[in-house]
Amino acid sequence: MGQKTRRIVLKRYIEGVPSPDDFEIVDHELPDLADGRFLVRNILLSVDPGTRARLSGQASYVPPLKLGEMVGAFSVGEVIESRHPDYVPGDIVSLAEGWAEHLVSKGRGFIRRITDRRLPLSPWLGVLGVSGMTAWFGLRRVGGLKSGQTVVVTSAAGAVGSAAGQIARLEGCRVIGVAGGLEKCRWLVDEAGFDHAIDYRSMDVAAAVAEAAPDGVDILFDNVGNEMIDAVIPSMNLNGVIVVSGQVAAYNQVDPPGLQNTRAFITHRLKMQGLVVFDDLPWDDAERAMAEHVLAGEIVWRDEIGEGLESIPEAFAGLFRGENRGRRLARLAPDPFEPEAKR
Amino acid sequence: MGQKTRRIVLKRYIEGVPSPDDFEIVDHELPDLADGRFLVRNILLSVDPGTRARLSGQASYVPPLKLGEMVGAFSVGEVIESRHPDYVPGDIVSLAEGWAEHLVSKGRGFIRRITDRRLPLSPWLGVLGVSGMTAWFGLRRVGGLKSGQTVVVTSAAGAVGSAAGQIARLEGCRVIGVAGGLEKCRWLVDEAGFDHAIDYRSMDVAAAVAEAAPDGVDILFDNVGNEMIDAVIPSMNLNGVIVVSGQVAAYNQVDPPGLQNTRAFITHRLKMQGLVVFDDLPWDDAERAMAEHVLAGEIVWRDEIGEGLESIPEAFAGLFRGENRGRRLARLAPDPFEPEAKR
Repeated sequence: MGQKTRRIVLKRYIEGVPSPDDFEIVDHELPDLADGRFLVRNILLSVDPGTRARLSGQASYVPPLKLGEMVGAFSVGEVIESRHPDYVPGDIVSLAEGWAEHLVSKGRGFIRRITDRRLPLSPWLGVLGVSGMTAWFGLRRVGGLKSGQTVVVTSAAGAVGSAAGQIARLEGCRVIGVAGGLEKCRWLVDEAGFDHAIDYRSMDVAAAVAEAAPDGVDILFDNVGNEMIDAVIPSMNLNGVIVVSGQVAAYNQVDPPGLQNTRAFITHRLKMQGLVVFDDLPWDDAERAMAEHVLAGEIVWRDEIGEGLESIPEAFAGLFRGENRGRRLARLAPDPFEPEAKR
Repeated sequence: MGQKTRRIVLKRYIEGVPSPDDFEIVDHELPDLADGRFLVRNILLSVDPGTRARLSGQASYVPPLKLGEMVGAFSVGEVIESRHPDYVPGDIVSLAEGWAEHLVSKGRGFIRRITDRRLPLSPWLGVLGVSGMTAWFGLRRVGGLKSGQTVVVTSAAGAVGSAAGQIARLEGCRVIGVAGGLEKCRWLVDEAGFDHAIDYRSMDVAAAVAEAAPDGVDILFDNVGNEMIDAVIPSMNLNGVIVVSGQVAAYNQVDPPGLQNTRAFITHRLKMQGLVVFDDLPWDDAERAMAEHVLAGEIVWRDEIGEGLESIPEAFAGLFRGENRGRRLARLAPDPFEPEAKR
């Protein structure tokens, strides 16, 4: 008999802003472990805005999730049973399967083994996971980051944005963050070491960027979408690069605004390029470099960790209300790598 | 006393589609030739859609032309007097000064000396000039053109587009051109060797591109603007490149449409990049390679040559009605490189 578990499925297709009622927690029995598979008990689940893309029920570049299917997500968990030659019980792995207490992996797709016991597990879903790697490869491979440049990061207090700003700062760049609300802006400057923060709720972003970057912007690392990109383009330097890391604003809009300032691609020789960080696997070198920054206390982040699957639907909806203070996670079990005292 | 000449000035700022009445031909006396300058008698003038960008009177990335100022343009002419050490009477040069019968050059900025007497002068304002070089460096430096790729070219019967398509064909690519009208489409396939042509006036471009490129599009070389780019993006392959060569559709629109399909930059890892071909100067290697193609009869083009300055205002307006069959030029004097019989 297979492992009994619980998981979160899509209850109705989402139009506009997600609501907790779009999801449902259901009991589920996993099939018996077939040869070549292993069973994972999840410890931490991540709650990512990017999940939104597949929840509209509409054909897109990624196939839409069907009603009643488990919602995809990243998690970190412990292997508790294995019929796969490379994984044994006790292994800690990061997976891209879904919001569930237990998961079966076929040993294919995204699986990262976590062996560095010097750090708790949560950063492996953050600055050492997809978010941090997206920041790293977005700035370095796509953006061509160089010391002394001016870098604007949008959604800067989020998991990807705050990692991007700090990577740029560690490279010796001037870093300007755009975020929603004074609290986030203060955190960016006071804790994350950004040179400047712009509150898009109370300020005109285009004017504020122009003022904060008198020598122009070399890289825009954007997580938001076209309106934000259009606000920054007039400040961009010749040969500036727009890294398209996310388009979170578009997920909830039926008819999102188009990008207007495309003539600047000619006049200012701009380059705009998107990335999906799985193209950059394996991440070993980048992970090691980032882990050293984390151990040295040179990169900070904020987690908001909810308890149990139950915390996830509301946490997900909150992402789109701009309420998150850093990365949203759900804890299902104690972290074996965290010092006893902190659990 | 300076050289007496005639030139074309801007009579009124242009809103929307240009009209011949926006320009005026005026008599002008050039100043006495100062030290370091040389006087050119123009032989051929070019009529380019890109000129439109500076004629609205509105501040943009390029300063607007003022009323009464000479309209900028490329030309080929003969040096008839020189106080510059590098140029002597009889030299044939290409300049970027303006629509005038005579010009004074300060010996700075864009000046190309034309010494290859095997070809008539007109291609030096076309496939061997800014148009052809934009096609060359756009496809090669920006697009990373590789044999076997599928390339879509818009405004394909124009000077830049037809050069781009033929460069891609010579590289062993499958080439699809988008142009306005059956006559242009026939020319693309029958004369310029395009694999396929799409008439945007009578066909749905998005559907036609999808059908003509069953294996997807690797490079979009666009001269038109956002609506055209949006029509091609759904057919683009992973890591596809959009070369922003021109945005001619936007010049005449007060509120041009934005680019909608920006989410594909992430899902399809697209790159969009603009170029200004003067960044690639000197063009010597590219010019030589293209000249050999021309001599071998491997690249064709169409000129529409009007007589005298008088032909220019109407020719310019016609560009924006899609009437041009290839490059528009105005001839002011016989071509010294053309065989006598052909003059």
